[in-house]
Amino acid sequence: VRAQVLESAFRLLVEKGPSAFSIGEVALRAKVHETSIYRRWRTKSALALDACLNFAEQTLAIPDTGALRSDLVDLLRRVSALLRSPEGKAMLALSFALEPEAIETRRTYWRIRLGAAAAIFERAAARGEISPDVDAKQFIEALIAPFFFRALVSLQPIEAWPFEQMVDRLLSAELRGGRKEGDISV
Amino acid sequence: VRAQVLESAFRLLVEKGPSAFSIGEVALRAKVHETSIYRRWRTKSALALDACLNFAEQTLAIPDTGALRSDLVDLLRRVSALLRSPEGKAMLALSFALEPEAIETRRTYWRIRLGAAAAIFERAAARGEISPDVDAKQFIEALIAPFFFRALVSLQPIEAWPFEQMVDRLLSAELRGGRKEGDISV
Repeated sequence: VRAQVLESAFRLLVEKGPSAFSIGEVALRAKVHETSIYRRWRTKSALALDACLNFAEQTLAIPDTGALRSDLVDLLRRVSALLRSPEGKAMLALSFALEPEAIETRRTYWRIRLGAAAAIFERAAARGEISPDVDAKQFIEALIAPFFFRALVSLQPIEAWPFEQMVDRLLSAELRGGRKEGDISV
Repeated sequence: VRAQVLESAFRLLVEKGPSAFSIGEVALRAKVHETSIYRRWRTKSALALDACLNFAEQTLAIPDTGALRSDLVDLLRRVSALLRSPEGKAMLALSFALEPEAIETRRTYWRIRLGAAAAIFERAAARGEISPDVDAKQFIEALIAPFFFRALVSLQPIEAWPFEQMVDRLLSAELRGGRKEGDISV
């Protein structure tokens, strides 16, 4: 039932936007009773948050290719594609919902998503690819922010942003800057 | 008259937002005839664009401190402060205006502003600080995007973004990566 409700809720968000989003309509679509939605999700913000997280977990699974660079490139390629899709545009439109409840929902969404992506850096540190001191969330924020800047602010084409080059720049700074005195590898 | 109209137009945008923005009200505030505004700016989008550019030119004058790093840090400090001010929040609210005319206006605004900031890199290249091949607009986009990401998307505090560290990372990548074989300076 949970998956069915979240899927219906996400579709409704995509089709009608956050202002037309209601638990009543989700219940109709998911063919469940309203009360059973309210039992699990107390507010429509909580339901919208879970619906977006559920979709993001499926679409933006955190990559595990065995190397930091290819993990990051893979993640950014998916973020870029998502932001150009109808689902991504609907999620961007949620950025325009500024009611107090929606604000908390979005903070939580990003705390969870950036936290999940940090796993890429934990694995890289375990492989000895990068210092465990690198702030993974900040690193990922720096890499994904330009896509959102283009989509929401400057309205330039997202697909033209040279994200691989940016991965290389930031990684090269980290790998060189993080090398310790006495480290003999070149 | 031009300065007076642009100042009144910008104040009106800040106070009432883009939807309540009209040439009639700007004329009232600036104490000029509507027709003399229409003569110079044919549409309210053109007027809003000029009003924002005029404000940005005054508030975000492109720094010229004599060194690339301090120019960038100075610019980013001002962008961060602006985005937290009432004027900056009003300009962010313009990001929510998605009528076709407003879209063209914003593209033009960013083309002009990123182009102006590129002067920082031209001067740095002339001083021999950085390769003239570095794409200045992309560099600046990468540096300012996280402020907008936090302000519009993740809703995290803008003032907590470590922009100096990011300047150092990107510059270190550029200076090291850009060094040519046979270059003997260290």
